[in-house]
Amino acid sequence: MHMDALLNPKSVAVIGASADPSKTSGRPVSYLLKHGFAGDIYPVNPKATEIQGLKCYQSINDIPAAPDVALVLLGAKRSIDAVRELSQLGCKAAIVLASGFAEAGQDGLDMQQQLLDAAGGMRILGPNTIGLINLTNKIPLSASGALEVSDLPVGNIAVVSQSGGVLGALLSRAAGKGIGLSSLVSTSNEVDLEVADFVEHLVDDKDTKVIALYLESIRNPERFREAALKASRAGKPIVAFKIGRSEAGARAASSHTGALAGEDRVYDAFFKQLGVIRANTFDELIDIPAALCNDRKMLGRRVAILTSTGGAGTLVSDALGMVDFETPVPDEETAMLLRDIQGDTPTVLDRNPIDVTLAGLQPDLLRKAITILLDSKSYDALVVIIGSSGLAMPDLVVGAIQDCLPKSNKPVMTYVSPNAPDTLKRLNSAHIPSFTSPESCSAALEALYRTRPEALELLSAQGSKEVALRAPFETSVFDESQAKSLFAAAGIPVPAHKIVHNEAEAEAALNELNAPVVLKVLDSKLMHKSDIGGVSLFNDRQSIGQALTAMRGSVAKHTKTEPSVFLVEEMVAGGYEIILGANRDELGVSILLGAGGVAAELYKDTTIRLLEKGKGLTLKQAEEMMRDLVAWPLLDGYRGADLRDTKALAEVIVNFSEFIASLGDELVTAEINPLFVLKAGAGVVAADAVLVLNERS
Amino acid sequence: MHMDALLNPKSVAVIGASADPSKTSGRPVSYLLKHGFAGDIYPVNPKATEIQGLKCYQSINDIPAAPDVALVLLGAKRSIDAVRELSQLGCKAAIVLASGFAEAGQDGLDMQQQLLDAAGGMRILGPNTIGLINLTNKIPLSASGALEVSDLPVGNIAVVSQSGGVLGALLSRAAGKGIGLSSLVSTSNEVDLEVADFVEHLVDDKDTKVIALYLESIRNPERFREAALKASRAGKPIVAFKIGRSEAGARAASSHTGALAGEDRVYDAFFKQLGVIRANTFDELIDIPAALCNDRKMLGRRVAILTSTGGAGTLVSDALGMVDFETPVPDEETAMLLRDIQGDTPTVLDRNPIDVTLAGLQPDLLRKAITILLDSKSYDALVVIIGSSGLAMPDLVVGAIQDCLPKSNKPVMTYVSPNAPDTLKRLNSAHIPSFTSPESCSAALEALYRTRPEALELLSAQGSKEVALRAPFETSVFDESQAKSLFAAAGIPVPAHKIVHNEAEAEAALNELNAPVVLKVLDSKLMHKSDIGGVSLFNDRQSIGQALTAMRGSVAKHTKTEPSVFLVEEMVAGGYEIILGANRDELGVSILLGAGGVAAELYKDTTIRLLEKGKGLTLKQAEEMMRDLVAWPLLDGYRGADLRDTKALAEVIVNFSEFIASLGDELVTAEINPLFVLKAGAGVVAADAVLVLNERS
Repeated sequence: MHMDALLNPKSVAVIGASADPSKTSGRPVSYLLKHGFAGDIYPVNPKATEIQGLKCYQSINDIPAAPDVALVLLGAKRSIDAVRELSQLGCKAAIVLASGFAEAGQDGLDMQQQLLDAAGGMRILGPNTIGLINLTNKIPLSASGALEVSDLPVGNIAVVSQSGGVLGALLSRAAGKGIGLSSLVSTSNEVDLEVADFVEHLVDDKDTKVIALYLESIRNPERFREAALKASRAGKPIVAFKIGRSEAGARAASSHTGALAGEDRVYDAFFKQLGVIRANTFDELIDIPAALCNDRKMLGRRVAILTSTGGAGTLVSDALGMVDFETPVPDEETAMLLRDIQGDTPTVLDRNPIDVTLAGLQPDLLRKAITILLDSKSYDALVVIIGSSGLAMPDLVVGAIQDCLPKSNKPVMTYVSPNAPDTLKRLNSAHIPSFTSPESCSAALEALYRTRPEALELLSAQGSKEVALRAPFETSVFDESQAKSLFAAAGIPVPAHKIVHNEAEAEAALNELNAPVVLKVLDSKLMHKSDIGGVSLFNDRQSIGQALTAMRGSVAKHTKTEPSVFLVEEMVAGGYEIILGANRDELGVSILLGAGGVAAELYKDTTIRLLEKGKGLTLKQAEEMMRDLVAWPLLDGYRGADLRDTKALAEVIVNFSEFIASLGDELVTAEINPLFVLKAGAGVVAADAVLVLNERS
Repeated sequence: MHMDALLNPKSVAVIGASADPSKTSGRPVSYLLKHGFAGDIYPVNPKATEIQGLKCYQSINDIPAAPDVALVLLGAKRSIDAVRELSQLGCKAAIVLASGFAEAGQDGLDMQQQLLDAAGGMRILGPNTIGLINLTNKIPLSASGALEVSDLPVGNIAVVSQSGGVLGALLSRAAGKGIGLSSLVSTSNEVDLEVADFVEHLVDDKDTKVIALYLESIRNPERFREAALKASRAGKPIVAFKIGRSEAGARAASSHTGALAGEDRVYDAFFKQLGVIRANTFDELIDIPAALCNDRKMLGRRVAILTSTGGAGTLVSDALGMVDFETPVPDEETAMLLRDIQGDTPTVLDRNPIDVTLAGLQPDLLRKAITILLDSKSYDALVVIIGSSGLAMPDLVVGAIQDCLPKSNKPVMTYVSPNAPDTLKRLNSAHIPSFTSPESCSAALEALYRTRPEALELLSAQGSKEVALRAPFETSVFDESQAKSLFAAAGIPVPAHKIVHNEAEAEAALNELNAPVVLKVLDSKLMHKSDIGGVSLFNDRQSIGQALTAMRGSVAKHTKTEPSVFLVEEMVAGGYEIILGANRDELGVSILLGAGGVAAELYKDTTIRLLEKGKGLTLKQAEEMMRDLVAWPLLDGYRGADLRDTKALAEVIVNFSEFIASLGDELVTAEINPLFVLKAGAGVVAADAVLVLNERS
């Protein structure tokens, strides 16, 4: 309701409007008029009686009717007062452009809270925002200089950006490429409305088919998750460019919006789980959506490349091959049909790229070739290369491609090889996704493949178990024995063990357990016990009692305190080492599975899944995690090696995830390292365990 | 001499010129006239007396003087005759555009040989080429449609492309960006002149500072090596985009120019050793050279980002961070100077990107800020972000940046955030490298860093030993014992071993060697002997004689022949497994070092160096190879582990490489796997060895 008023207002007040359209505060009224806003405009400025031909009001209270939306162009402090008055007037939403809030330090953060308080029931976009633009309905509520351009193409891609400057760049770049947008919103400081609010709203927007996001940080991961899943279910893909990929970038993001950037790999996992497509380059944030909003389906990975210029076809073929697309040669029937349409000098057609150089560029030939390739059982998509010969008659080329589109549902896109901005614009305007970089072709095809109906179904097939929150523990840090007991109760096998306090008890424990055993010091505060002699695999030349005496001395030398509790535990042998952990960061709690051991640590062979609040992972997710590991073949009988008990591993991953979920917000970190995966049928065993919860106050 | 005539002709014959400039065969004369060629033009066409105002000759023999260059526009067969006549006339070089040669199969390949024979002493560019363009001297010898554009910027980047279409695309795209070129050559089938010829020539061209290459395959690696090293020594960087990165791409390349594409990682190593910078995207093939041809030096990795639009600055900062550039905050002195130049509302300046949004975009302020940042001891380079506010007065922005350039030798580039092709063009025309993608900024800075004087010095410091070719062997395949003897003689330690033929000899060998030993079947034809029971670590319950009996049976079961020769060898224990190999492919012989074992095989942790003909690797190269491995820390005492004998390993790499070099063209493949690296001081041992040479006819 309020969201609709914000994005589709019938009346707009502009607080602090300037009569000079060259000033930032003069732009919004000028843009509303220029782009043809059909509703009421109420400029407010105590120093003017008329602004750009419109009656100007002295104060907010003079506005004749409560506006749907107010654009507040005042400085930070005065914006707070204006917001209060607007709320009292019954305005539904205010867009606050002023900076100097959360991004400017603690004082600004305090002021931002005052702004929110002043708003009462009114919604706020911003502060520090450049505003929003509803292109579909000609409603520019923004000071973005990108609105200076008159002729902005309208289309079905919505943009939500956490940076105002980037919003302007996207608008300007999309227009330059002839790619149409529906609405654009800059959320910036997000004191109230955040990215997820707009995603949720735009999923229901009939003019939006794809949502492009520029993200610096996600403030409310649970809300984002819901919105993203709603989009997936509605078949409206989300494409996100997320900065903070490098440490330096993360620092800059934090200074820009006052947000904390999270670890990038966790974001990767989060997006993947939600079906959000991550753009790897800024260009792809426009190019991928352009390919996704044509309702064409890509059901396989075989691509035909039709070219009239050899080199560029090879370039695209190479880029496609890099991300494992296939570019098979035409099957016999297709090759025959292609030969038939050519004259006396048939080109060699047993290749792909399919080169029609010799035949020259005749629209009719092009039309026939495209139709044959789209009908061919050998291909799932088509890339047409536009060479310099196509530039001479762009309309004929565009027309020929357009004519073929209704006959097939397969994706068709073009790669424009020379510098030809006008041709590019015409192609995109004609709803033929067209790119100037080979990498955009492969990214667009990958996105089409990832959003094929089958993949979306897999995504929405949930089924992870709801887990009840357990009662809080008495303590927040657990020693190895305590952690293992909890894990064991949760269905994670641990080795048989005894707690001992002296040499005699150790000798007794040795007799009760199956040899070989390992002796460890037991102390929840010692994190790296093996580095200080706190783990012993004592040998034949030493009794377990002697080993305990030696350990007591070695640990005491490091910690200045004699340890008094020890663990005697059956040793696990012959297993493949895995690490299984859980961690909390800004996106929530995630489960990490990794190949264990020193080497794998260097190769960083790990995979991550975010937990949904109150839910563990499904068995299917656990199995996918195992297969994500580069080391997976080592579990799966690589080169005649033993098959490992991957069934037991998958179950333990699920059990661990459900235990972690049951801890709710208590978890700080948990880790089983190593988790030994034994031979098939022999199970897995947690050889070490760590559990840390929030400190109890 | 001939090369200069080809690139700088005083007279040009156009064989098969058409009077219709809209035809491909009509274009060259039209382009020569249009772009202002100052020399003589001799169109040849039996059916015309005048072409575009020029006297037309009936035949080649009618041309009044031997032309420096002839452009041959005829079909494949007639081109051969024309080339013969031109050679007889004394023409210095012919450019043959016809296709239908090597790229079209065996018949074409034969015709290509005829073409070469017909040329005699005359040089040939092509066939299947689009020609060449000397922009500096206004000499277009090409039918490329990219020459339709009148206003092609002249600069200091030369382009050599193995594809004519790509040459046209590069010319057109560079012009669109305002980036000037010197000369462009399309070599295509390379029946005579190849990429290396042009590189060598262009290094001496005073108008060329950077050479951009589009490569599908390198036909003559030794010549390319010489030319590339000549370029490095002359301080003229080479930037190469090489396709064939994927299997599909490699296939397309081979069909396009009839060349076989080599393994991509070997190309990577080859380029790196020669100081050739590899462009990762097609855009970078223009963008990187634009940054390299301004004679500015980048001595460190610290970059200042000056922005008037927060989001775009963050975007660039993120991209720089991804490739390990630093974007430190201003030091105190720099921050103070920046504060001083601002008015009453100083922006927060303790950050980088350094945001001057509030101060608005005043050229004077911009000039001062740039000067301060270039003078600052905190930065090695500067990226200026051009936001939409800069578009209103591009000349002032360009002027402000230009004013600051003479005062510093540090690189300055811009990132243009909105779609602003005219501004981009103005910036590049003013020799301010300017990009529309954050990735191009980081690629350009990386290239500047890699071509800093210090790096170039390291590159030219050679010193690998000349190795004498050894006399050919009697045999081409060696069994393990023979291979090990050869390796041992070359300075590669192998375990003590005995050759035995029966149970009794095996028992005797066991007594002479240090236990434990390993028993192996010895047969040069068995490549995977462990898979057929041909390797035994026999245990206590079995004598070595019994093990030999069992092995004889097991191997015979697989090979149908009883093996008669066995190896008893001291077992190596406790070493870190490495693989050391040598291989020959189209670029020559390369040495591969890899982390050994099953896991590392999955992680593909290997590094490659190409050998220079007749030379081994230097000790320094060997050390670099070890450090290239992700697993290097495991050799270097990772987490308190044993230090390995890396000194011995480096020496063995050198010894191995010199042995390989001594084999000359005989080598097919050689491998030591595993090579055990023992504890520091204990050396390395080759536990298995393979050597295969060319079959002797």
